Amino acid sequence: MIEETTITRAIAEKYMEKFLENLECDVCIVGGGPSGLVSAYYLAKRGFKVSLFEKKLSLGGGIWGGGMMFNKVVVQNNALEVLNDVGIGYEKYDDTHYVVDAIELASGLIYSAVKAGAAIFNLINVEDVMIKEDRITGLVINWTAVEMSGLHIDPMTVACKAVVDATGHDASVCHIVARKTEKLNLAGEKYMWAEKAEKAIVEHTSEVYPGLFVTGMSVAAVYGLPRMGPIFGGMLLSGRKVAELVTEKLG
Amino acid sequence: MIEETTITRAIAEKYMEKFLENLECDVCIVGGGPSGLVSAYYLAKRGFKVSLFEKKLSLGGGIWGGGMMFNKVVVQNNALEVLNDVGIGYEKYDDTHYVVDAIELASGLIYSAVKAGAAIFNLINVEDVMIKEDRITGLVINWTAVEMSGLHIDPMTVACKAVVDATGHDASVCHIVARKTEKLNLAGEKYMWAEKAEKAIVEHTSEVYPGLFVTGMSVAAVYGLPRMGPIFGGMLLSGRKVAELVTEKLG
Amino acid sequence: MIEETTITRAIAEKYMEKFLENLECDVCIVGGGPSGLVSAYYLAKRGFKVSLFEKKLSLGGGIWGGGMMFNKVVVQNNALEVLNDVGIGYEKYDDTHYVVDAIELASGLIYSAVKAGAAIFNLINVEDVMIKEDRITGLVINWTAVEMSGLHIDPMTVACKAVVDATGHDASVCHIVARKTEKLNLAGEKYMWAEKAEKAIVEHTSEVYPGLFVTGMSVAAVYGLPRMGPIFGGMLLSGRKVAELVTEKLG
Amino acid sequence: MIEETTITRAIAEKYMEKFLENLECDVCIVGGGPSGLVSAYYLAKRGFKVSLFEKKLSLGGGIWGGGMMFNKVVVQNNALEVLNDVGIGYEKYDDTHYVVDAIELASGLIYSAVKAGAAIFNLINVEDVMIKEDRITGLVINWTAVEMSGLHIDPMTVACKAVVDATGHDASVCHIVARKTEKLNLAGEKYMWAEKAEKAIVEHTSEVYPGLFVTGMSVAAVYGLPRMGPIFGGMLLSGRKVAELVTEKLG
Amino acid sequence: MIEETTITRAIAEKYMEKFLENLECDVCIVGGGPSGLVSAYYLAKRGFKVSLFEKKLSLGGGIWGGGMMFNKVVVQNNALEVLNDVGIGYEKYDDTHYVVDAIELASGLIYSAVKAGAAIFNLINVEDVMIKEDRITGLVINWTAVEMSGLHIDPMTVACKAVVDATGHDASVCHIVARKTEKLNLAGEKYMWAEKAEKAIVEHTSEVYPGLFVTGMSVAAVYGLPRMGPIFGGMLLSGRKVAELVTEKLG
Amino acid sequence: MIEETTITRAIAEKYMEKFLENLECDVCIVGGGPSGLVSAYYLAKRGFKVSLFEKKLSLGGGIWGGGMMFNKVVVQNNALEVLNDVGIGYEKYDDTHYVVDAIELASGLIYSAVKAGAAIFNLINVEDVMIKEDRITGLVINWTAVEMSGLHIDPMTVACKAVVDATGHDASVCHIVARKTEKLNLAGEKYMWAEKAEKAIVEHTSEVYPGLFVTGMSVAAVYGLPRMGPIFGGMLLSGRKVAELVTEKLG
Amino acid sequence: MIEETTITRAIAEKYMEKFLENLECDVCIVGGGPSGLVSAYYLAKRGFKVSLFEKKLSLGGGIWGGGMMFNKVVVQNNALEVLNDVGIGYEKYDDTHYVVDAIELASGLIYSAVKAGAAIFNLINVEDVMIKEDRITGLVINWTAVEMSGLHIDPMTVACKAVVDATGHDASVCHIVARKTEKLNLAGEKYMWAEKAEKAIVEHTSEVYPGLFVTGMSVAAVYGLPRMGPIFGGMLLSGRKVAELVTEKLG
Amino acid sequence: MIEETTITRAIAEKYMEKFLENLECDVCIVGGGPSGLVSAYYLAKRGFKVSLFEKKLSLGGGIWGGGMMFNKVVVQNNALEVLNDVGIGYEKYDDTHYVVDAIELASGLIYSAVKAGAAIFNLINVEDVMIKEDRITGLVINWTAVEMSGLHIDPMTVACKAVVDATGHDASVCHIVARKTEKLNLAGEKYMWAEKAEKAIVEHTSEVYPGLFVTGMSVAAVYGLPRMGPIFGGMLLSGRKVAELVTEKLG
Repeated sequence: MIEETTITRAIAEKYMEKFLENLECDVCIVGGGPSGLVSAYYLAKRGFKVSLFEKKLSLGGGIWGGGMMFNKVVVQNNALEVLNDVGIGYEKYDDTHYVVDAIELASGLIYSAVKAGAAIFNLINVEDVMIKEDRITGLVINWTAVEMSGLHIDPMTVACKAVVDATGHDASVCHIVARKTEKLNLAGEKYMWAEKAEKAIVEHTSEVYPGLFVTGMSVAAVYGLPRMGPIFGGMLLSGRKVAELVTEKLG
Repeated sequence: MIEETTITRAIAEKYMEKFLENLECDVCIVGGGPSGLVSAYYLAKRGFKVSLFEKKLSLGGGIWGGGMMFNKVVVQNNALEVLNDVGIGYEKYDDTHYVVDAIELASGLIYSAVKAGAAIFNLINVEDVMIKEDRITGLVINWTAVEMSGLHIDPMTVACKAVVDATGHDASVCHIVARKTEKLNLAGEKYMWAEKAEKAIVEHTSEVYPGLFVTGMSVAAVYGLPRMGPIFGGMLLSGRKVAELVTEKLG
Repeated sequence: MIEETTITRAIAEKYMEKFLENLECDVCIVGGGPSGLVSAYYLAKRGFKVSLFEKKLSLGGGIWGGGMMFNKVVVQNNALEVLNDVGIGYEKYDDTHYVVDAIELASGLIYSAVKAGAAIFNLINVEDVMIKEDRITGLVINWTAVEMSGLHIDPMTVACKAVVDATGHDASVCHIVARKTEKLNLAGEKYMWAEKAEKAIVEHTSEVYPGLFVTGMSVAAVYGLPRMGPIFGGMLLSGRKVAELVTEKLG
Repeated sequence: MIEETTITRAIAEKYMEKFLENLECDVCIVGGGPSGLVSAYYLAKRGFKVSLFEKKLSLGGGIWGGGMMFNKVVVQNNALEVLNDVGIGYEKYDDTHYVVDAIELASGLIYSAVKAGAAIFNLINVEDVMIKEDRITGLVINWTAVEMSGLHIDPMTVACKAVVDATGHDASVCHIVARKTEKLNLAGEKYMWAEKAEKAIVEHTSEVYPGLFVTGMSVAAVYGLPRMGPIFGGMLLSGRKVAELVTEKLG
Repeated sequence: MIEETTITRAIAEKYMEKFLENLECDVCIVGGGPSGLVSAYYLAKRGFKVSLFEKKLSLGGGIWGGGMMFNKVVVQNNALEVLNDVGIGYEKYDDTHYVVDAIELASGLIYSAVKAGAAIFNLINVEDVMIKEDRITGLVINWTAVEMSGLHIDPMTVACKAVVDATGHDASVCHIVARKTEKLNLAGEKYMWAEKAEKAIVEHTSEVYPGLFVTGMSVAAVYGLPRMGPIFGGMLLSGRKVAELVTEKLG
Repeated sequence: MIEETTITRAIAEKYMEKFLENLECDVCIVGGGPSGLVSAYYLAKRGFKVSLFEKKLSLGGGIWGGGMMFNKVVVQNNALEVLNDVGIGYEKYDDTHYVVDAIELASGLIYSAVKAGAAIFNLINVEDVMIKEDRITGLVINWTAVEMSGLHIDPMTVACKAVVDATGHDASVCHIVARKTEKLNLAGEKYMWAEKAEKAIVEHTSEVYPGLFVTGMSVAAVYGLPRMGPIFGGMLLSGRKVAELVTEKLG
Repeated sequence: MIEETTITRAIAEKYMEKFLENLECDVCIVGGGPSGLVSAYYLAKRGFKVSLFEKKLSLGGGIWGGGMMFNKVVVQNNALEVLNDVGIGYEKYDDTHYVVDAIELASGLIYSAVKAGAAIFNLINVEDVMIKEDRITGLVINWTAVEMSGLHIDPMTVACKAVVDATGHDASVCHIVARKTEKLNLAGEKYMWAEKAEKAIVEHTSEVYPGLFVTGMSVAAVYGLPRMGPIFGGMLLSGRKVAELVTEKLG
Repeated sequence: MIEETTITRAIAEKYMEKFLENLECDVCIVGGGPSGLVSAYYLAKRGFKVSLFEKKLSLGGGIWGGGMMFNKVVVQNNALEVLNDVGIGYEKYDDTHYVVDAIELASGLIYSAVKAGAAIFNLINVEDVMIKEDRITGLVINWTAVEMSGLHIDPMTVACKAVVDATGHDASVCHIVARKTEKLNLAGEKYMWAEKAEKAIVEHTSEVYPGLFVTGMSVAAVYGLPRMGPIFGGMLLSGRKVAELVTEKLG
């Protein structure tokens, strides 16, 4: 056999295997930013069959750019536990603030989620949801490249027991559910107030529609909470909390 | 002090510290794809002061998309050593071909390069080079966002003892040197012939102008070698080899 | 099993089956315009394993728009045989000119090529070629959507015994071979002279590099022949001739 | 006479003949996707004078791309009759699901509609409708290229006894009628629920305003039904049903 | 008959009549700027069958904008005769310079060309030429909207005894002939020197290839003459001269 | 004096003279389509100081393109008087419908308006209006090129006794007045019904806010009337009527 | 030390020093047009720590373009005092109107604000605000280049005692506060009435939300006042007044 | 008189006065960056009639953005004299390097050039040059907005005794002269070498074609010199030197 087609065959077969295996899974996480990756890590660690769908080519979302392209971010002391769990270093700035290299945080979170066993599908856009008898039962997906190129091509579907909306400021899964069921209201993210936001986002991390959970900045978009800028403690803790809530639910 | 400005201050100070510390370094690697990251890993491991500049927001280059968006890639048996060094898993396909998850490969290479001590600067475009007395002595850099937004803003510079062009198919540093010195010719990448390409790229990994080394697909662009598609053994080995050549040179 | 995932599974499995089956085939035809479809029809009829790659979503190329968006085209009497073979109707205009509905011609040629057994892959862009020992041995393909969306994603490959460049005015496969081997010159299509063009294109339909055949308007681009406008006799006959030449070669 | 101008003359005359003949027809179908083509086929078969207007260069709509660019689609057993009528092959997947090649389905539906006698006008955009005494009496059409190029050029009109909105998700004719008469409400397509959608779309295929019928995905947009992804049974049956309803009406 | 379709029918029939009547004519003028319109006026006055093709929606080219959007232009005393012929007013500025309202000049030249009997086709792009036995024998035309919208649609042709390139700075017909025959060289327009340019352009107005004449700024592009800015005497006189040359030729 | 600067000086001085002379005028007409030009013609004929502002480079609006780029239009018998007044030819199609060449109609209307004494300013965008004590007293104008190029540059003003909104479908002056005064409602143009539209538009041509008159398609946009396609009788008669209404008002 | 890196180091250090020093300041002015610059001048003169953020590369806003690109502007006699304070010349036009060169006005206002001690940050976009206990306490800023290039990168913050919205027509800070607090209504700028506008804008210059002041055209946007065109007296006086109001408040 | 039209009249008249006065001047400077502004300052100081044309809305060119958007720049000790002449402050960094605020430098240079008497025309693009008897005698100008908006509008001209190309990296006037006369060669700017560049650019500041002088980065583009980044000593000194050379020439 010619080597080039072996490469092609190996990739196509192994990807299709991964894709078909995950057509029906326990949890679908939408969005590969900090909260989505942390929830994928803890859920996969607990043995759930987890698929994470990311719209872009790479994962890590807004972490890479730090604050204003200065690639460092801040994490508070109460979230160091999560950093320790996934093996990311930090430097103390003052008693409550620690500085983390953005590149290390982004790559470390992705790497640990994969190593924990989450199946990550990048380049996939979630166009819509499946709902049956007032319960979310899956996602309607397509290649992001299809949307970017303006082609008119039908999507396909994956089925799951729980969906986590970790799409950040957009809260895009919640927006679809809100528009199509009229049973969910999105208050919209508020102005910046870091201290208040950090606490409130963790507190409001929850199930917002049967089978649909929110984490990270999507929580602010749903509940009308303030935003907080390049500090990531709340994001990490919200990701860990949503993993606990889903675990409880799927019990 | 107000918390939000503490976050801002912490990020700005720590980034600027990293930036100023690396204004003069041993090796500047341009491009954060597989070869660039592997060379950063091995050079940093050996104790060199290494800066890696990546044009995009995230690192990992063409790895994330696997082949045709199927996020798996192939690595041959002779390059498994590098995967083992950086902690990336693989699955045997046949005697010579192993399949690797693209997400794990991308994030693992980035993570290991940072952990090894390389300073990574993303969102930075290399606009030009510094040359003195027929030797490359540094890079002329700017924010990628400046180029993308079409603003007319002056660049700044970093100085180093060696530059590694790991920009892939573009070989963009080599192109600048070729155009501005007329002492370097770029033959241009050829058609696909995976087997031949994999060997030739490692063999031709070398210093192409005083102080300027090429690795990865840039080697093909300079020497007119064939291309190979989504198989990454040659990329990894070329990255390791360029690290050895630079080590020798800077001795 | 949930019905939606059955649909997804059925489509993914059957497409992948078709894709893997055709990774190695007899003839790869690039371009789904009139000549490409006619050659696919005759080659598949003769029992060859034929794959046709089309860049766009739909096939039929320039046929659909007729002349200046008036969706009728002209075919000469010497090519009526091909129309009869594939079941397309025509209306006599004068002794040599027959008018055909463009929609019928486009859909009929596609339909008959599929029915004859050709495997058609639309939405696929041919980025490059495989060449070994001065012979074309396959194509380097990618999703068109990848190119359209500007994403940086590696291509994959298909292997074959013969390639037919049916890409029309672009002669894009020939252009790649010309640029990368420097063993093929493209003279460029000339001004319009319908009568001369119709004959010359059929005459010059040939193998232009070991394993690479040209048909249709690509012939004009390679040999510097005149163009002919919305008259399709030459296109159909060139498609039939290239099928004969490939048959002879693959014997 | 010079041959080139004969070609031009033949095309212009024959197109204009077709255009003028269809300025006043029985049924105008808007949209050349699966439902539109099937309804054109059955209505033309019954002897009605049918014009189908398609905005794009080619017909077939969303069929070509299968699901997520994998060019296969699914059809259920209850719709095989339509496939048999128009001569399209299928492969059994399980008791209820059959897989069809997307290229064959698209080209076969177009080809059979033309062969049945429908006059197809591609590259034509329906900008508005004609309404007299609260009844739709025709369409206001223009070249799609006019809209795409942003030129300011007046449209023209075609008159008919019935209009079929087969424009898919957009339900664009219904939207025009809704906005301009305020006598039609569009509920908007809902989330995915394939089983429910497949049945409901056929059931709700109907006349929604005097002289205006909906078929295919436009039915979902008008009645607020769920969507179903790349399964085409409902589309085909809705197209056949609308043909029956129009037949009854025009009786 | 319904009134709206009568309007449509009347327009379609009368346009097609005009189009078919002019498929074979004496002179094809390409470009509806000052020189093209003046030549159309004088040639039509002399009884030739003249078709003028203009790429844009409106005619008049660069006249409308005057100089730097100040809609006045200058004409010298030696060209007042042409203004008088076509009924355009002027105001004396000094002994040699007269000021003309740009709107009056543009509309007056168009109006007089139509009244003289020239058939004007706007929105038509000349894509290529017909050449037989080293003589230009017609034009290859398409809708401009086709090019603007990026659609892939075949052109059609018109036949004539002489072509006048009045496309201005572009000299686009000459460029096509130069590229495709290699028997014509274009020197490219030079810097500004109004006095010299005004004379030289009239002097060099001529036949540049068998059957192909140049007028207006295209003359400068072919012969490498200087340019002159918003003074139109030379343009008007060049248009009149080319009419004389064509008359002589077609005798 | 150098000749080139004489040309520049002549144009700048004469344009500025025209501009300053018209800073305060009787009537400002916005939009240079058929109704605007006809109203300019009749008002200027009656001795009013008339300025017409057109956004585009050329005047004539939607006339040039005829119907669907077929450059012919239809005028009914009751409007032939206007054609006769301005010197435009026509061809009888049936008892009520006459066909006019679109190029002749556009250029003839512009030419006659200028000849009648209207000052035409093309390339000028009306950004806003001047209103004092609930009466429109002038226009806020800017170069269209400023808006097109996205530059942030202040507008200037012209004062007048009456404004005619002849901007067509947009009714853009009415929209500004509606939004900023909340004393004018725009019903929006309705579907096509040519016969009804032709009469209604002339009837509703009127003063809609103190000092602001509407003519042409803007009348349909304000009063919610049907549209009529490429028939121009109503446009011409509405333009003549608005001239009469303004005459009465300014008496 | 190598000279190039000294340049880089000097710039980076000095900018960062300026940036960190101004992370907490007395007054943040948003927008570097006439009112913002004048308020920065007077506030800095009084010894306040003032930061001015401008979105664009250069400051001066709409001044540079004068009226319709004619780079002169008008100032009334009651505002000459401000011109005298900042050293800008003027030419008398009539008793109340003075003409000023736009280039001198723009550069002079910027120069005097810097000389007075205001810290100017250009290329900075204000994305959001900080609000605590119903009082604005700072701004959320990012590089404009980040927004222009569509990158997804977190902003940072600056804290202050008062914010001045000098963003002109957009009133963009007020819009953010209005949307996020629902405690501020924006009436929207009205039509032009220069005399009324000039007075009203100065009168309404005020604090509109705790800690948030408006000046210049933003006043019109908030209070629904008329606009005035290229006359700058009101702008200058509003800028001086807001400086007085802020002085009083911060006492 | 109505106040708004007085404002309009005042601006239009005064701008036109300035424009007409400068139609024939001593020196035309193209480009309003540091060298252009410095040369304008010194030439105007010496009493020459100087016009400076800037393409953009604002002047100052690349100064505003400092290095990589950090708005500080460096000036060496040998250029402090120029800063003192024009009233710009600086802070010592080390013995040879001084740091200047970019906003102060940009605004101060513009302000001083205007105050010295230079007539500045922004928003003007130099499209071409006037050349007579092998000597540059003026510029062909147009509104930048015309080019940006893609409109086809004729330029106008200004005459002068000397032209200074201060267009920076583009050397756009030199490029026009090179292309149109073939008597000037442009070597193209080289890589960065700050020390060498700073000296060489001042040394090579000179007359490059009869009547055409170069200053600033255009010198590097013409003579193939290295570049230097955000250090402005050479720019300022080159601007002063070109003023001396022009003074000598015009005597």
